[in-house]
Amino acid sequence: MPNISQRGQTMPPSPIRKLVPFAEAAKKKGVTVYHLNIGQPDIETPQPVLDAVRHSTFKILDYSHSAGNESYRRKLISYYKKFDITVDHTEIIVTTGGSEAILFGFMACLDPGDEVIVPEPFYANYNGFATEANIAIVPVTSSIDTGFALPPIADFEKKITPKTKAILICNPNNPTGYLYSRAEMEVLKQICLKHNLFLFSDEAYREFCYDGENISALNLTGLDNHVVVFDTISKRYSACGARIGAVVTHNRTILDSVMKFAQARLSPPSFAQIAAEAAVDLPDNYFDGIKAEYQSRRDVLVSLLNKIPGVFCPNPGGAFYAMARLPIDDADKFCQWLLESFSYEEQTVMLSPATGFYATPGLGKQEVRLAYVINQESITKAMKTLEKALEIYPGRI
Amino acid sequence: MPNISQRGQTMPPSPIRKLVPFAEAAKKKGVTVYHLNIGQPDIETPQPVLDAVRHSTFKILDYSHSAGNESYRRKLISYYKKFDITVDHTEIIVTTGGSEAILFGFMACLDPGDEVIVPEPFYANYNGFATEANIAIVPVTSSIDTGFALPPIADFEKKITPKTKAILICNPNNPTGYLYSRAEMEVLKQICLKHNLFLFSDEAYREFCYDGENISALNLTGLDNHVVVFDTISKRYSACGARIGAVVTHNRTILDSVMKFAQARLSPPSFAQIAAEAAVDLPDNYFDGIKAEYQSRRDVLVSLLNKIPGVFCPNPGGAFYAMARLPIDDADKFCQWLLESFSYEEQTVMLSPATGFYATPGLGKQEVRLAYVINQESITKAMKTLEKALEIYPGRI
Repeated sequence: MPNISQRGQTMPPSPIRKLVPFAEAAKKKGVTVYHLNIGQPDIETPQPVLDAVRHSTFKILDYSHSAGNESYRRKLISYYKKFDITVDHTEIIVTTGGSEAILFGFMACLDPGDEVIVPEPFYANYNGFATEANIAIVPVTSSIDTGFALPPIADFEKKITPKTKAILICNPNNPTGYLYSRAEMEVLKQICLKHNLFLFSDEAYREFCYDGENISALNLTGLDNHVVVFDTISKRYSACGARIGAVVTHNRTILDSVMKFAQARLSPPSFAQIAAEAAVDLPDNYFDGIKAEYQSRRDVLVSLLNKIPGVFCPNPGGAFYAMARLPIDDADKFCQWLLESFSYEEQTVMLSPATGFYATPGLGKQEVRLAYVINQESITKAMKTLEKALEIYPGRI
Repeated sequence: MPNISQRGQTMPPSPIRKLVPFAEAAKKKGVTVYHLNIGQPDIETPQPVLDAVRHSTFKILDYSHSAGNESYRRKLISYYKKFDITVDHTEIIVTTGGSEAILFGFMACLDPGDEVIVPEPFYANYNGFATEANIAIVPVTSSIDTGFALPPIADFEKKITPKTKAILICNPNNPTGYLYSRAEMEVLKQICLKHNLFLFSDEAYREFCYDGENISALNLTGLDNHVVVFDTISKRYSACGARIGAVVTHNRTILDSVMKFAQARLSPPSFAQIAAEAAVDLPDNYFDGIKAEYQSRRDVLVSLLNKIPGVFCPNPGGAFYAMARLPIDDADKFCQWLLESFSYEEQTVMLSPATGFYATPGLGKQEVRLAYVINQESITKAMKTLEKALEIYPGRI
């Protein structure tokens, strides 16, 4: 029997999904599990988006253009314009989810052994794409004590080597909810210019900013050849299953290269591109209600968390995640214990241990990520349950 | 300005799509272009497949299971059963097209620098996936004179090195249409057992066999831990734009590894999985009409080709491609000339130069691939046009 590859062996499993069997077992025992662990919104996908697919009349489900339907890419010009981003349709390559956008960006810009600096904690699947592309993620640690603000320039510069090719940020951030300020974006720009680095910017949560403006990396001037934005409609329109994202950049050399990766896999999904195109036509006020709902949930969640003795949760400025420090010995143990050994009035909560979001071993052991993708009543019950759990958790410190 | 990667530079462009601008220019001049160049079927996607999506009633387009919906995977058990393939739903991981299945297979089984032996000519995008995975494709040449039969064992063994980890076949074959016999499949099995290699089998065209039975690699006994099948619904149901494929294997170690790659990209497209599941329910006779149509087209195409002076086209046993040897100096020049400088009664033909399907430099210069995805009347007109073109082509030899 031949051996699988080292890459196949070292590919990291999803740190979030490893708790799933424990959640399933809890449910089988009749326990209600509040899912604060994954970024799957409970908000309904807008009806016109689903209807566009359901009312379609084509006869052959054929390949689209490898860069995505031109009609969709042309429509996206007006979408980006709303954020003061000026791009033409040839500067957008539609991908199969934001996932593929990240992989194409890594592949086109970095060679095996190259390094990309990422503020930690970060979206855990970056590790997987890095393994696929055989590149190294070099973390720069941000701290819960500063609300996960951008680490100082000196911390970045300490990590820069001849192998460093890029900095990758997620803004607003998953998992911290942190929203980078204009000043912080300017700092990133200066580092990238000084050290000739690409700036990869994952902007999956662009619409969801509550306490300040969202500065896209594409809003930075004089950085056109450095910036590559990874985009996705997954969270924006509660359309995670569409698998439609995009690589957006002004850098023609990158576009030409990404196009070759796009051609190899032929095309992004056709049904979902119809949905994505319809989504661009949603009225401007579509996000008002959604944002208000997420903001109310955040306010309830953060306020209740900070009332629990020993808990600290900085107020996140965007996305729909919060990171909290808990008075516990080990987040992985605690999250498993919640599902396996605890219930309060037949309820428990599923959280993501923060350890999976840090690359530096040992960090995040007292932190968990909470996704506020359940309604406010459920959030309130979940926080009561968490409070009760912390009172009796054997590993409380 | 930072440089893109070597990988991004060396990634091969699609050899098929480079002629597209010439075809567009010809059409602008009012010339009818018969598209025999790409594997996009003109057959309509079955109505129940499209209706399943159009009549869906879900409210949230959410992520599916990373391995694909369990209901779909369970249904596929019965699909494979029809081909005497016994798998359970945990041995199937649904992918975003056959493309992703190939990439996952390469990533899970091969490390950078590893080699996979592939009979040439082969599907050109294997080169792209090999570049992404940093592996080497080592060609073993099959010849148009034997109808592209499997090369002798000795030819394979000459290419085996300590780096060789797998053999990759496509059966029935794209681009040759060749259908491997049971005896040939047994030969491949012996080589894989003797040298401890994986057998990757791309079976995108399983249904389309005209002169003999289709032997899946999964029909081989005693090779369970070696065989990895790459599957797709694209051609089967004229659903290229769905982007639904699968990795199918009995090897649990590979499944565990592929699952990690699948988790990193979250899930395959949700709309299209509904379509794919409905497709499994099509009546068994669905393929009878489609197969008869393709077979008639093949018969017309091959017969007309062989009547053109100086042309030789072996009869392909499956898929919907034929490879022909033409009396020309250079297939790339000829195919471009057809679009740029030739027309007959305001018509011309678009073909794929075979050079893009060979890894060995210099091979395929007198060969072209023809995809019979247009109707018989158009095929007849296209062959008349090709005959006229060959009469006056300046590079005729």
